[in-house]
Amino acid sequence: MEIKVVKKVLGVNEAIAEEIRKTLKEKKVFMLNLMSSPGSGKTTILLKTIGQLKDNFRIGVVVGDICTTYDSERLSETGVPVVQINTEPFGGDCHLAANVVQGGLSELDLDALDLVFVENVGNLVCPAEFEIGEDKKVVVLSLPEGEDKPLKYPLMFSKCHALLVNKVDFLPLSDFNMKALKERVKQLNPKIEIFEISCKTGQGIDRWTGWLKKSLSDIR
Amino acid sequence: MEIKVVKKVLGVNEAIAEEIRKTLKEKKVFMLNLMSSPGSGKTTILLKTIGQLKDNFRIGVVVGDICTTYDSERLSETGVPVVQINTEPFGGDCHLAANVVQGGLSELDLDALDLVFVENVGNLVCPAEFEIGEDKKVVVLSLPEGEDKPLKYPLMFSKCHALLVNKVDFLPLSDFNMKALKERVKQLNPKIEIFEISCKTGQGIDRWTGWLKKSLSDIR
Repeated sequence: MEIKVVKKVLGVNEAIAEEIRKTLKEKKVFMLNLMSSPGSGKTTILLKTIGQLKDNFRIGVVVGDICTTYDSERLSETGVPVVQINTEPFGGDCHLAANVVQGGLSELDLDALDLVFVENVGNLVCPAEFEIGEDKKVVVLSLPEGEDKPLKYPLMFSKCHALLVNKVDFLPLSDFNMKALKERVKQLNPKIEIFEISCKTGQGIDRWTGWLKKSLSDIR
Repeated sequence: MEIKVVKKVLGVNEAIAEEIRKTLKEKKVFMLNLMSSPGSGKTTILLKTIGQLKDNFRIGVVVGDICTTYDSERLSETGVPVVQINTEPFGGDCHLAANVVQGGLSELDLDALDLVFVENVGNLVCPAEFEIGEDKKVVVLSLPEGEDKPLKYPLMFSKCHALLVNKVDFLPLSDFNMKALKERVKQLNPKIEIFEISCKTGQGIDRWTGWLKKSLSDIR
Protein backbone atom coordinates (compact mmCIF):
# COMPACT_ATOMS: atom_id res chain seq x y z
CA MET A 1 0.00 0.00 0.00
CA GLU A 2 2.72 2.42 0.97
CA ILE A 3 4.61 1.53 -2.21
CA LYS A 4 1.55 2.35 -4.28
CA VAL A 5 1.38 5.81 -2.75
CA VAL A 6 5.05 6.43 -3.54
CA LYS A 7 4.61 5.33 -7.15
CA LYS A 8 1.62 7.57 -7.64
CA VAL A 9 3.49 10.54 -6.19
CA LEU A 10 6.48 9.83 -8.46
CA GLY A 11 4.26 9.66 -11.58
CA VAL A 12 2.75 13.07 -10.87
CA ASN A 13 6.20 14.38 -10.00
CA GLU A 14 7.64 13.25 -13.33
CA ALA A 15 4.99 15.17 -15.27
CA ILE A 16 5.65 18.39 -13.36
CA ALA A 17 9.42 17.95 -13.78
CA GLU A 18 8.84 17.77 -17.54
CA GLU A 19 6.89 21.05 -17.43
CA ILE A 20 9.75 22.70 -15.54
CA ARG A 21 12.29 21.35 -18.04
CA LYS A 22 10.27 22.82 -20.92
CA THR A 23 9.99 26.22 -19.27
CA LEU A 24 13.71 26.35 -18.47
CA LYS A 25 14.58 25.40 -22.05
CA GLU A 26 12.37 28.18 -23.43
CA LYS A 27 13.94 30.70 -21.06
CA LYS A 28 17.47 29.33 -21.67
CA VAL A 29 18.01 28.86 -17.96
CA PHE A 30 20.36 26.15 -16.71
CA MET A 31 19.27 24.46 -13.47
CA LEU A 32 21.50 22.48 -11.14
CA ASN A 33 20.19 20.22 -8.35
CA LEU A 34 22.69 20.10 -5.49
CA MET A 35 22.21 17.22 -3.08
CA SER A 36 24.02 15.74 -0.06
CA SER A 37 23.78 14.66 3.54
CA PRO A 38 23.13 17.38 6.09
CA GLY A 39 26.30 19.22 6.97
CA SER A 40 28.43 18.22 4.01
CA GLY A 41 28.73 21.85 2.94
CA LYS A 42 26.18 22.59 0.18
CA THR A 43 25.53 26.17 1.27
CA THR A 44 29.21 27.05 1.63
CA ILE A 45 29.95 25.52 -1.77
CA LEU A 46 27.19 27.65 -3.28
CA LEU A 47 28.59 30.76 -1.63
CA LYS A 48 32.03 30.06 -3.18
CA THR A 49 30.56 29.13 -6.56
CA ILE A 50 28.27 32.15 -6.77
CA GLY A 51 31.19 34.34 -5.76
CA GLN A 52 33.18 33.09 -8.77
CA LEU A 53 30.35 33.18 -11.31
CA LYS A 54 28.13 36.10 -10.45
CA ASP A 55 30.03 38.68 -12.49
CA ASN A 56 29.49 36.66 -15.68
CA PHE A 57 26.17 34.93 -15.11
CA ARG A 58 22.80 35.99 -13.77
CA ILE A 59 22.16 33.58 -10.91
CA GLY A 60 19.17 32.63 -8.78
CA VAL A 61 18.90 30.13 -5.92
CA VAL A 62 16.10 27.95 -4.60
CA VAL A 63 16.92 26.52 -1.17
CA GLY A 64 15.01 23.65 0.39
CA ASP A 65 14.87 22.95 4.09
CA ILE A 66 12.41 21.24 6.38
CA CYS A 67 12.16 24.45 8.32
CA THR A 68 14.20 27.59 9.08
CA THR A 69 15.60 30.17 6.65
CA TYR A 70 19.15 29.77 7.91
CA ASP A 71 20.74 28.78 4.57
CA SER A 72 18.85 31.35 2.50
CA GLU A 73 19.95 34.13 4.85
CA ARG A 74 23.58 33.13 4.28
CA LEU A 75 23.04 32.91 0.51
CA SER A 76 21.26 36.28 0.32
CA GLU A 77 24.51 37.95 1.32
CA THR A 78 25.82 37.20 -2.19
CA GLY A 79 23.25 39.64 -3.58
CA VAL A 80 21.59 37.11 -5.91
CA PRO A 81 17.85 36.41 -5.58
CA VAL A 82 17.16 33.52 -3.18
CA VAL A 83 13.87 31.70 -2.64
CA GLN A 84 13.51 29.62 0.49
CA ILE A 85 11.22 26.60 0.44
CA ASN A 86 10.27 25.03 3.72
CA THR A 87 8.81 21.57 3.31
CA GLU A 88 7.21 21.60 6.74
CA PRO A 89 3.78 22.60 5.33
CA PHE A 90 4.19 19.70 2.86
CA GLY A 91 4.41 17.08 5.62
CA GLY A 92 8.07 17.84 6.44
CA ASP A 93 9.26 16.21 3.22
CA CYS A 94 12.91 15.19 3.24
CA HIS A 95 13.34 16.13 -0.43
CA LEU A 96 12.15 18.77 -2.89
CA ALA A 97 9.40 17.43 -5.13
CA ALA A 98 8.92 19.00 -8.58
CA ASN A 99 5.71 20.83 -7.62
CA VAL A 100 7.51 22.47 -4.72
CA VAL A 101 10.43 23.52 -6.96
CA GLN A 102 7.94 24.86 -9.51
CA GLY A 103 6.47 27.06 -6.79
CA GLY A 104 9.96 28.28 -5.89
CA LEU A 105 10.87 29.05 -9.51
CA SER A 106 7.68 31.08 -9.92
CA GLU A 107 9.13 33.50 -7.35
CA LEU A 108 12.17 34.12 -9.57
CA ASP A 109 12.23 36.20 -12.76
CA LEU A 110 13.50 33.47 -15.10
CA ASP A 111 13.78 35.92 -18.01
CA ALA A 112 16.51 37.68 -16.08
CA LEU A 113 18.51 34.55 -15.16
CA ASP A 114 21.09 32.24 -16.78
CA LEU A 115 21.55 29.79 -13.96
CA VAL A 116 19.46 28.49 -11.05
CA PHE A 117 20.97 26.49 -8.21
CA VAL A 118 18.59 24.30 -6.26
CA GLU A 119 19.98 23.39 -2.86
CA ASN A 120 18.01 20.29 -1.98
CA VAL A 121 17.04 19.14 1.53
CA GLY A 122 19.95 17.41 3.31
CA ASN A 123 19.41 13.71 2.58
CA LEU A 124 21.20 11.07 0.45
CA VAL A 125 18.07 9.03 -0.19
CA CYS A 126 14.83 10.61 -1.35
CA PRO A 127 16.17 13.58 -3.35
CA ALA A 128 17.75 11.05 -5.76
CA GLU A 129 14.29 9.70 -6.61
CA PHE A 130 12.60 12.97 -7.46
CA GLU A 131 13.27 14.57 -10.83
CA ILE A 132 12.84 18.35 -10.64
CA GLY A 133 13.50 19.24 -14.28
CA GLU A 134 17.18 20.00 -13.68
CA ASP A 135 19.96 19.97 -16.30
CA LYS A 136 22.53 18.47 -13.95
CA LYS A 137 22.40 16.64 -10.64
CA VAL A 138 25.39 17.07 -8.36
CA VAL A 139 26.07 15.25 -5.09
CA VAL A 140 28.38 16.51 -2.37
CA LEU A 141 30.19 14.03 -0.14
CA SER A 142 32.08 15.47 2.77
CA LEU A 143 35.36 13.61 3.32
CA PRO A 144 34.62 12.86 7.01
CA GLU A 145 31.47 10.97 5.92
CA GLY A 146 33.70 8.16 4.67
CA GLU A 147 34.42 6.40 1.40
CA ASP A 148 31.71 3.76 1.90
CA LYS A 149 28.80 6.05 1.03
CA PRO A 150 28.46 5.00 -2.64
CA LEU A 151 27.97 1.40 -1.46
CA LYS A 152 25.15 2.50 0.79
CA TYR A 153 23.45 5.12 -1.38
CA PRO A 154 23.95 3.73 -4.88
CA LEU A 155 20.97 5.52 -6.45
CA MET A 156 22.31 8.96 -5.57
CA PHE A 157 25.78 8.26 -6.96
CA SER A 158 24.35 6.54 -10.07
CA LYS A 159 22.12 9.43 -11.00
CA CYS A 160 24.47 12.38 -10.52
CA HIS A 161 26.55 14.03 -13.23
CA ALA A 162 29.20 15.22 -10.81
CA LEU A 163 30.49 14.42 -7.33
CA LEU A 164 32.10 17.06 -5.15
CA VAL A 165 34.31 15.49 -2.49
CA ASN A 166 34.28 18.37 -0.03
CA LYS A 167 36.39 19.21 3.04
CA VAL A 168 39.50 17.52 1.63
CA ASP A 169 41.44 19.79 4.02
CA PHE A 170 40.56 17.19 6.69
CA LEU A 171 42.62 14.57 4.82
CA PRO A 172 45.75 14.90 7.02
CA LEU A 173 43.73 13.82 10.11
CA SER A 174 41.74 11.16 8.29
CA ASP A 175 42.13 7.59 7.06
CA PHE A 176 39.79 8.32 4.14
CA ASN A 177 40.59 6.17 1.09
CA MET A 178 40.13 8.45 -1.95
CA LYS A 179 41.12 5.72 -4.41
CA ALA A 180 38.48 3.33 -3.04
CA LEU A 181 35.86 6.10 -3.19
CA LYS A 182 36.61 6.88 -6.82
CA GLU A 183 36.59 3.21 -7.84
CA ARG A 184 33.25 2.64 -6.14
CA VAL A 185 31.66 5.72 -7.69
CA LYS A 186 33.01 5.00 -11.18
CA GLN A 187 31.72 1.43 -10.97
CA LEU A 188 28.21 2.74 -10.34
CA ASN A 189 28.52 5.59 -12.79
CA PRO A 190 31.48 5.56 -15.22
CA LYS A 191 30.67 8.99 -16.67
CA ILE A 192 30.49 10.93 -13.39
CA GLU A 193 32.92 13.83 -12.96
CA ILE A 194 34.69 13.89 -9.59
CA PHE A 195 36.10 17.06 -8.03
CA GLU A 196 38.12 17.14 -4.81
CA ILE A 197 37.42 20.48 -3.19
CA SER A 198 37.88 22.48 -0.03
CA CYS A 199 35.93 25.67 0.60
CA LYS A 200 38.40 26.50 3.37
CA THR A 201 41.57 26.39 1.23
CA GLY A 202 39.93 26.96 -2.17
CA GLN A 203 41.39 23.71 -3.55
CA GLY A 204 39.57 22.42 -6.63
CA ILE A 205 36.98 25.23 -6.78
CA ASP A 206 38.29 26.52 -10.12
CA ARG A 207 38.08 23.07 -11.72
CA TRP A 208 34.51 22.69 -10.46
CA THR A 209 33.34 26.10 -11.68
CA GLY A 210 35.13 25.41 -14.99
CA TRP A 211 33.04 22.27 -15.47
CA LEU A 212 29.93 24.23 -14.54
CA LYS A 213 30.68 26.96 -17.10
CA LYS A 214 31.23 24.33 -19.78
CA SER A 215 27.96 22.58 -18.89
CA LEU A 216 26.18 25.91 -19.12
CA SER A 217 27.63 26.76 -22.54
CA ASP A 218 26.63 23.28 -23.80
CA ILE A 219 22.92 24.00 -23.38
CA ARG A 220 22.86 27.58 -24.68
CA MET B 1 -3.49 15.33 0.33
CA GLU B 2 0.11 14.33 0.88
CA ILE B 3 -0.13 15.54 4.47
CA LYS B 4 -3.17 13.34 5.05
CA VAL B 5 -1.25 10.26 3.87
CA VAL B 6 1.61 11.03 6.24
CA LYS B 7 -0.77 11.47 9.17
CA LYS B 8 -2.49 8.18 8.48
CA VAL B 9 0.81 6.35 8.29
CA LEU B 10 1.95 7.97 11.55
CA GLY B 11 -1.28 6.92 13.33
CA VAL B 12 -0.83 3.26 12.38
CA ASN B 13 2.86 3.53 13.26
CA GLU B 14 2.08 4.80 16.76
CA ALA B 15 -0.14 1.79 17.50
CA ILE B 16 2.54 -0.68 16.42
CA ALA B 17 5.20 1.19 18.41
CA GLU B 18 2.98 0.77 21.49
CA GLU B 19 2.80 -3.01 20.84
CA ILE B 20 6.59 -3.17 20.61
CA ARG B 21 6.96 -1.16 23.82
CA LYS B 22 4.66 -3.61 25.65
CA THR B 23 6.55 -6.67 24.38
CA LEU B 24 9.93 -5.20 25.34
CA LYS B 25 8.65 -4.34 28.82
CA GLU B 26 7.39 -7.89 29.34
CA LYS B 27 10.70 -9.34 28.20
CA LYS B 28 12.71 -6.73 30.17
CA VAL B 29 14.60 -5.69 27.06
CA PHE B 30 15.94 -2.14 26.73
CA MET B 31 15.84 -0.73 23.18
CA LEU B 32 17.84 2.20 21.90
CA ASN B 33 17.13 4.01 18.61
CA LEU B 34 20.36 5.43 17.16
CA MET B 35 19.88 8.10 14.51
CA SER B 36 22.07 10.47 12.48
CA SER B 37 23.07 11.71 9.05
CA PRO B 38 24.78 9.23 6.77
CA GLY B 39 28.47 8.91 7.59
CA SER B 40 28.41 10.39 11.08
CA GLY B 41 29.65 7.12 12.55
CA LYS B 42 26.68 5.13 13.93
CA THR B 43 28.11 1.71 13.03
CA THR B 44 31.55 2.44 14.43
CA ILE B 45 30.01 3.79 17.64
CA LEU B 46 27.98 0.59 17.97
CA LEU B 47 31.10 -1.52 17.43
CA LYS B 48 32.86 0.35 20.27
CA THR B 49 29.80 0.28 22.52
CA ILE B 50 29.10 -3.42 22.00
CA GLY B 51 32.79 -4.16 22.62
CA GLN B 52 32.52 -2.48 26.04
CA LEU B 53 29.17 -3.97 27.07
CA LYS B 54 28.95 -7.45 25.61
CA ASP B 55 30.60 -9.25 28.53
CA ASN B 56 27.94 -7.95 30.94
CA PHE B 57 24.85 -7.62 28.75
CA ARG B 58 23.17 -9.83 26.16
CA ILE B 59 22.94 -7.60 23.11
CA GLY B 60 21.11 -7.74 19.78
CA VAL B 61 21.16 -5.28 16.87
CA VAL B 62 18.63 -4.29 14.23
CA VAL B 63 20.24 -2.32 11.38
CA GLY B 64 18.27 -0.32 8.87
CA ASP B 65 19.53 0.62 5.43
CA ILE B 66 17.88 1.42 2.13
CA CYS B 67 19.84 -1.42 0.60
CA THR B 68 23.08 -3.37 1.18
CA THR B 69 24.16 -5.39 4.22
CA TYR B 70 27.39 -3.47 4.65
CA ASP B 71 26.78 -2.26 8.22
CA SER B 72 25.39 -5.57 9.45
CA GLU B 73 28.45 -7.42 8.15
CA ARG B 74 30.68 -5.10 10.17
CA LEU B 75 28.48 -5.50 13.26
CA SER B 76 28.33 -9.30 12.97
CA GLU B 77 32.04 -9.40 13.71
CA THR B 78 31.24 -8.55 17.33
CA GLY B 79 29.55 -11.94 17.67
CA VAL B 80 26.15 -10.52 18.76
CA PRO B 81 23.03 -11.36 16.72
CA VAL B 82 22.38 -8.78 13.99
CA VAL B 83 19.25 -8.40 11.87
CA GLN B 84 19.52 -6.34 8.70
CA ILE B 85 16.45 -4.53 7.44
CA ASN B 86 16.51 -3.16 3.92
CA THR B 87 13.77 -0.63 3.31
CA GLU B 88 14.03 -0.97 -0.48
CA PRO B 89 11.06 -3.40 -0.64
CA PHE B 90 9.11 -0.84 1.45
CA GLY B 91 9.49 1.89 -1.14
CA GLY B 92 13.07 2.77 -0.18
CA ASP B 93 11.93 4.42 3.04
CA CYS B 94 14.45 6.83 4.53
CA HIS B 95 13.54 5.78 8.09
CA LEU B 96 12.56 2.66 10.02
CA ALA B 97 8.82 2.52 10.66
CA ALA B 98 7.53 0.56 13.65
CA ASN B 99 6.13 -2.32 11.56
CA VAL B 100 9.53 -2.79 9.94
CA VAL B 101 11.28 -2.78 13.35
CA GLN B 102 8.69 -5.26 14.64
CA GLY B 103 9.62 -7.58 11.78
CA GLY B 104 13.30 -7.19 12.65
CA LEU B 105 12.72 -7.89 16.36
CA SER B 106 10.80 -11.08 15.51
CA GLU B 107 14.10 -12.43 14.12
CA LEU B 108 15.79 -11.98 17.51
CA ASP B 109 15.26 -14.18 20.60
CA LEU B 110 14.13 -11.42 22.95
CA ASP B 111 14.04 -13.82 25.94
CA ALA B 112 17.81 -14.13 25.58
CA LEU B 113 18.55 -10.38 25.37
CA ASP B 114 18.94 -7.41 27.72
CA LEU B 115 19.57 -4.70 25.16
CA VAL B 116 18.67 -4.08 21.51
CA PHE B 117 20.34 -1.37 19.47
CA VAL B 118 18.42 -0.13 16.45
CA GLU B 119 20.69 1.59 13.96
CA ASN B 120 18.26 3.70 11.98
CA VAL B 121 18.57 4.71 8.31
CA GLY B 122 21.00 7.64 7.86
CA ASN B 123 18.77 10.72 7.90
CA LEU B 124 18.18 13.62 10.32
CA VAL B 125 14.58 14.17 9.27
CA CYS B 126 12.10 11.31 9.02
CA PRO B 127 13.48 8.96 11.70
CA ALA B 128 12.65 11.64 14.29
CA GLU B 129 8.98 11.40 13.37
CA PHE B 130 8.55 7.64 13.70
CA GLU B 131 8.22 6.12 17.18
CA ILE B 132 9.48 2.53 17.18
CA GLY B 133 8.75 1.60 20.82
CA GLU B 134 12.26 2.46 21.99
CA ASP B 135 13.31 3.35 25.57
CA LYS B 136 15.80 5.98 24.46
CA LYS B 137 16.44 7.94 21.28
CA VAL B 138 20.02 9.00 20.63
CA VAL B 139 21.28 11.25 17.83
CA VAL B 140 24.86 11.32 16.58
CA LEU B 141 26.30 14.52 15.16
CA SER B 142 29.68 14.25 13.55
CA LEU B 143 31.79 17.32 14.32
CA PRO B 144 32.53 18.08 10.64
CA GLU B 145 28.77 18.42 10.02
CA GLY B 146 28.88 21.74 11.84
CA GLU B 147 27.28 23.30 14.89
CA ASP B 148 24.27 24.66 12.97
CA LYS B 149 22.48 21.31 12.67
CA PRO B 150 20.14 21.77 15.69
CA LEU B 151 18.85 24.97 14.05
CA LYS B 152 18.02 23.05 10.88
CA TYR B 153 16.75 19.76 12.34
CA PRO B 154 15.04 20.88 15.54
CA LEU B 155 12.67 17.90 15.79
CA MET B 156 15.53 15.38 15.94
CA PHE B 157 17.38 17.31 18.66
CA SER B 158 14.17 17.98 20.60
CA LYS B 159 13.13 14.35 20.75
CA CYS B 160 16.42 12.67 21.66
CA HIS B 161 17.54 11.72 25.17
CA ALA B 162 21.22 11.95 24.30
CA LEU B 163 23.47 13.55 21.70
CA LEU B 164 26.80 12.02 20.75
CA VAL B 165 29.12 14.62 19.22
CA ASN B 166 31.35 12.23 17.31
CA LYS B 167 34.75 12.61 15.60
CA VAL B 168 35.93 15.27 18.07
CA ASP B 169 39.45 14.21 17.02
CA PHE B 170 38.89 16.52 14.00
CA LEU B 171 38.65 19.53 16.35
CA PRO B 172 42.27 20.72 15.79
CA LEU B 173 41.59 21.20 12.04
CA SER B 174 38.11 22.63 12.51
CA ASP B 175 36.43 25.89 13.45
CA PHE B 176 33.56 23.99 15.06
CA ASN B 177 31.97 25.98 17.91
CA MET B 178 31.17 23.40 20.62
CA LYS B 179 29.77 26.04 22.98
CA ALA B 180 27.29 27.28 20.34
CA LEU B 181 26.25 23.70 19.59
CA LYS B 182 25.54 22.92 23.22
CA GLU B 183 23.60 26.14 23.76
CA ARG B 184 21.45 25.49 20.69
CA VAL B 185 20.73 21.90 21.68
CA LYS B 186 19.97 22.75 25.31
CA GLN B 187 17.60 25.50 24.21
CA LEU B 188 15.59 22.95 22.21
CA ASN B 189 15.91 20.23 24.80
CA PRO B 190 17.16 21.23 28.27
CA LYS B 191 17.25 17.62 29.57
CA ILE B 192 19.35 16.11 26.77
CA GLU B 193 22.66 14.50 27.75
CA ILE B 194 25.61 15.50 25.54
CA PHE B 195 28.72 13.35 25.10
CA GLU B 196 31.80 14.42 23.15
CA ILE B 197 33.28 11.25 21.74
CA SER B 198 35.89 9.94 19.31
CA CYS B 199 35.89 6.32 18.21
CA LYS B 200 39.43 6.83 16.94
CA THR B 201 40.96 8.00 20.24
CA GLY B 202 38.38 6.46 22.58
CA GLN B 203 37.62 9.87 24.13
CA GLY B 204 34.27 9.98 25.94
CA ILE B 205 33.27 6.39 25.19
CA ASP B 206 33.34 5.38 28.88
CA ARG B 207 31.07 8.28 29.88
CA TRP B 208 28.62 7.33 27.12
CA THR B 209 28.52 3.64 28.01
CA GLY B 210 28.21 4.64 31.67
CA TRP B 211 25.07 6.61 30.86
CA LEU B 212 23.77 3.67 28.85
CA LYS B 213 24.33 1.23 31.73
CA LYS B 214 22.53 3.57 34.09
CA SER B 215 19.60 3.94 31.66
CA LEU B 216 19.42 0.17 31.41
CA SER B 217 19.40 -0.33 35.17
CA ASP B 218 16.65 2.29 35.53
CA ILE B 219 14.16 0.19 33.57
CA ARG B 220 14.95 -3.21 35.08
